[in-house]
Amino acid sequence: MHGLHLSRKTLTLRDDLPVPVPAEGEALVRVCLAGICSTDLELVHGYYPFDGILGHEFIGVVEDCNEPGWTGRRVVATINLSPDCGGRCGRRCPEHCPQRSVVGIVGRDGVFAEQVALPVANLLRVPDSLNDEQAVFTEPLAAALRIAEQMKRTEGKAIVIGAGRLGLLCAQALRARGTKVTVIGRSARSLELSKRLGFLTHCADDRDADNLTGAPLIIECSASPEGLRLAVDLCAPEGTIILKSTYADNPGDAVRFAGFAGVLAKVVVDEIRIQGSRCGPFDQALALLESGAIDTASLVDAVYPLAEGLVAMEHAARAGARKILLQP
Amino acid sequence: MHGLHLSRKTLTLRDDLPVPVPAEGEALVRVCLAGICSTDLELVHGYYPFDGILGHEFIGVVEDCNEPGWTGRRVVATINLSPDCGGRCGRRCPEHCPQRSVVGIVGRDGVFAEQVALPVANLLRVPDSLNDEQAVFTEPLAAALRIAEQMKRTEGKAIVIGAGRLGLLCAQALRARGTKVTVIGRSARSLELSKRLGFLTHCADDRDADNLTGAPLIIECSASPEGLRLAVDLCAPEGTIILKSTYADNPGDAVRFAGFAGVLAKVVVDEIRIQGSRCGPFDQALALLESGAIDTASLVDAVYPLAEGLVAMEHAARAGARKILLQP
Repeated sequence: MHGLHLSRKTLTLRDDLPVPVPAEGEALVRVCLAGICSTDLELVHGYYPFDGILGHEFIGVVEDCNEPGWTGRRVVATINLSPDCGGRCGRRCPEHCPQRSVVGIVGRDGVFAEQVALPVANLLRVPDSLNDEQAVFTEPLAAALRIAEQMKRTEGKAIVIGAGRLGLLCAQALRARGTKVTVIGRSARSLELSKRLGFLTHCADDRDADNLTGAPLIIECSASPEGLRLAVDLCAPEGTIILKSTYADNPGDAVRFAGFAGVLAKVVVDEIRIQGSRCGPFDQALALLESGAIDTASLVDAVYPLAEGLVAMEHAARAGARKILLQP
Repeated sequence: MHGLHLSRKTLTLRDDLPVPVPAEGEALVRVCLAGICSTDLELVHGYYPFDGILGHEFIGVVEDCNEPGWTGRRVVATINLSPDCGGRCGRRCPEHCPQRSVVGIVGRDGVFAEQVALPVANLLRVPDSLNDEQAVFTEPLAAALRIAEQMKRTEGKAIVIGAGRLGLLCAQALRARGTKVTVIGRSARSLELSKRLGFLTHCADDRDADNLTGAPLIIECSASPEGLRLAVDLCAPEGTIILKSTYADNPGDAVRFAGFAGVLAKVVVDEIRIQGSRCGPFDQALALLESGAIDTASLVDAVYPLAEGLVAMEHAARAGARKILLQP
């Protein structure tokens, strides 16, 4: 079958990949639509030593499954798998299980392919009211909803740093939970969509951010040390910064983190909480998509056939690019 | 009067400082004993642009006070002052009040002098059962107790990174709250006192830290980016790292923070909480000192007369130095 395969930081479009054979308790799923996430781009940059088929955001149809009631169903799937633990790790399992594999990220082939084998335990049915272009956002929207799980309160004000695909999902998820959100982007142009979606906006270059300082909740989605620096700068005493984006080390990092002792000093003096945040509740994400509160269509910049997957990855890596979808 | 005065990053011992004149609601306090904190050293390095008399850890005797019942009393004092706000800032006031001054740190003369004027509202009486060498630890012990205030639970295990004056106070404060503490120090020698105080110890150079990974609570007291890097490395998924120490930027920082993108990625993936932590409850600190659970005597490396304050500051800056006291 066709698929985007990563090996030693080299991504290739292959047509010789074997169709996966589902193990016991697994289903064979035909991928209808998949989404490119910044984590996919960072994996290519070596953020984590993954070899295999890339991709973890998707919607598909079950083609083959021993368990009754699944074949022919439209599904999405949670991405953390821990077949051997059974909760014995004593953690939030499988999300933080040391034995876990993660679809398209850690030790398990992903969804940038025609078919993928996935445990039935990870599958969720997609309501008929959602089309594929909406349902493919389930995974990143669930990650955005993780913020509300981690915070005691999400009413009040929040700042989202980064007007990209992840930032605008987090902004919409928070708004749906009652938060008044300001989105900070690199440039006025990058903020056009944020404005159209009805958010207050602010340009990062505009130093007149006085009305923004003292924010109780800041979501860092810029995938850069500069974003974290700005977040700490704007955060209220005893406020929370949610770290959402991950990025690979690169030779420029030493310079990018220059002066970080001062950033950390403010974290201590102002007793700021920096909270890492990853996977979230799929059921809530599906329900929120169904409610119509999330505009996903505006976030899609382009849909490429899987055969043009390498071009699609390049497109997704462009500054300002939002969601790029792949159609196998 | 005599005092250690900081001006444009230059610390001088002066004998021409005016005796402070207490404002309304303030008391004139004769300083009996003062402690040198790493913050004092970092202020000299320019961590914050403070000009004035340094020092915020002390015990003294009230010499003059308009309010009844204070003159002649042995006292300690909380360090945050917010005379003009009255809680209107809507924050934990005065600790996080934007109008605050901080004794010996922000806009207010400190205690490395013969006398100091302080608001009566900041004073706490010292029980007779505590001698000066114990009571002078009230401020840093209160800061250590702030950790328990910020955590839902402190039972279980914790790691303290840094076997210095702050680390060993945090370790003892946590032990008093029921935590089983392991102290990590730079070298076997730096851990001798930790061992004598009954803590499990581990040398940072010893890479066989397998039994330490997965710690639910880590207190970073090493005052270095390397300490934070190690903390993230050892922290359990959904665990907490308490940031205690602040330090000034320096030209070497760019190198010290090299590879920090990877550190932050682990914070995201493992959903780690990094929590800044500063001032804590003085009343609890005094009560804990009275209980006898805190060995302060072992933490004192030397007592210098105030006239040798510059030598004392140099001593406090030496690697491995613990608490250095000043006697005006």
